[in-house]
Amino acid sequence: MVKVYIVGAGPGDPELITVKAVKLLELADVVVYDRLIPVDVLKHVKEGAELIYVGKEPGRHSMEQDEINELLLRKALEGKVIVRLHGGDPFIFGRGFEECQYLIRNGVECEAVPGVTSAIAAPEQYLIPILLRGVSSSVAFVTGREDPGKGFREVDFRRLATSVGTIVILMGASEACRIAGELIQGGLDSSTPVAVVTRAYMSGSRVQFMTLGEVAGCRITVENPSVIIVGKSVRLSPLYKDAVSHST
Amino acid sequence: MVKVYIVGAGPGDPELITVKAVKLLELADVVVYDRLIPVDVLKHVKEGAELIYVGKEPGRHSMEQDEINELLLRKALEGKVIVRLHGGDPFIFGRGFEECQYLIRNGVECEAVPGVTSAIAAPEQYLIPILLRGVSSSVAFVTGREDPGKGFREVDFRRLATSVGTIVILMGASEACRIAGELIQGGLDSSTPVAVVTRAYMSGSRVQFMTLGEVAGCRITVENPSVIIVGKSVRLSPLYKDAVSHST
Repeated sequence: MVKVYIVGAGPGDPELITVKAVKLLELADVVVYDRLIPVDVLKHVKEGAELIYVGKEPGRHSMEQDEINELLLRKALEGKVIVRLHGGDPFIFGRGFEECQYLIRNGVECEAVPGVTSAIAAPEQYLIPILLRGVSSSVAFVTGREDPGKGFREVDFRRLATSVGTIVILMGASEACRIAGELIQGGLDSSTPVAVVTRAYMSGSRVQFMTLGEVAGCRITVENPSVIIVGKSVRLSPLYKDAVSHST
Repeated sequence: MVKVYIVGAGPGDPELITVKAVKLLELADVVVYDRLIPVDVLKHVKEGAELIYVGKEPGRHSMEQDEINELLLRKALEGKVIVRLHGGDPFIFGRGFEECQYLIRNGVECEAVPGVTSAIAAPEQYLIPILLRGVSSSVAFVTGREDPGKGFREVDFRRLATSVGTIVILMGASEACRIAGELIQGGLDSSTPVAVVTRAYMSGSRVQFMTLGEVAGCRITVENPSVIIVGKSVRLSPLYKDAVSHST
């Protein structure tokens, strides 16, 4: 039975890929890869293997998800060893699960190979605890950008605000101001510390510390890609500074 | 300046360690390791390096956290390359952050190297989506076992119940029945699907599917170590079965 490997490449640092992912890349006949993978991991691919770029850039979809699913199925049915490489982890805000589901429904076996997600790696790069005894016993990972086709918002930031110790928002750059406002409406103090980690483990990576009130003031630009971390444990980072002195 | 590396070893499969962690293990003079690391990853350690086991077994602490901190500091001040190896990711319910904090306060540099956490890997091993467009836009990771010394519970499962799409509980085996009850009290339907993944990526790993009501009925034994996944997206796993037919 043919099989497709849905593989996480980890965050920006090409050394944060797993040993298993490297072995699969060495073995693969076809590698189908995303926009946000660390490009250097492709050096593990064997000579003569086929490399197919299907990365989605904001506002410019290189290939629709249906087409990617079809491509994976077609290549699998040719009997080739296929690695579908996602940035981070394939099931954390990727479409890895949908790809598996499609393949299995069409009689092709699928194995998911987890990777380090930037939701965890980004705070860790700057020694920001998202879970910490006595301070934060729970963390939520949420998307800041929901499928507009749904017509409603599934993430209720007001409700989420005080339900967990720390909130980690991915793909929230363009919605940061609205989200921060909703978190304050939901009961978080506007002095709650926020860290914005931009380009985690890539060149030019950086962290900015601010308060939730400052983000809600809409005068801060959050660049893409960023991971936004909200919660009182942020303040315990050894790198924490009250970087922005004014309050909104 | 001396430096300690606080490193994640990943979940049970020794190939789910990162390339960076392997390189650091090859370089290390001293490796201080936990109970829940995949033992085979220690084969990367160079000959002559010192291996120190500090794993904490339930009810039998091999070494207190204060002693571990002191040990790391002492070895670092000897000028040695030190890897402190945690199971999974060092900041996800490990004490990696506290170790870094202690070292930095004592003038020793600290670098965290993220790893694949079982919170993400365990559901993925059994193709269980924890985030899925249109079904679950948020996931919370929580501990089922809080520090009893605190005297109060920080995780309010009643409040958490309907705040996120999926709830992933680590170290919740012994408290599963109480937690399930609180989630139902908090508004989750007793028919909500639950997956219990035991010994993820280790030998003898398995998944059991059930309903939240069945867990709350206290007749199901959850073994250690298990990851408990609660949410409607669980049902979409290709492996999902209505394994337990009775309802409580």
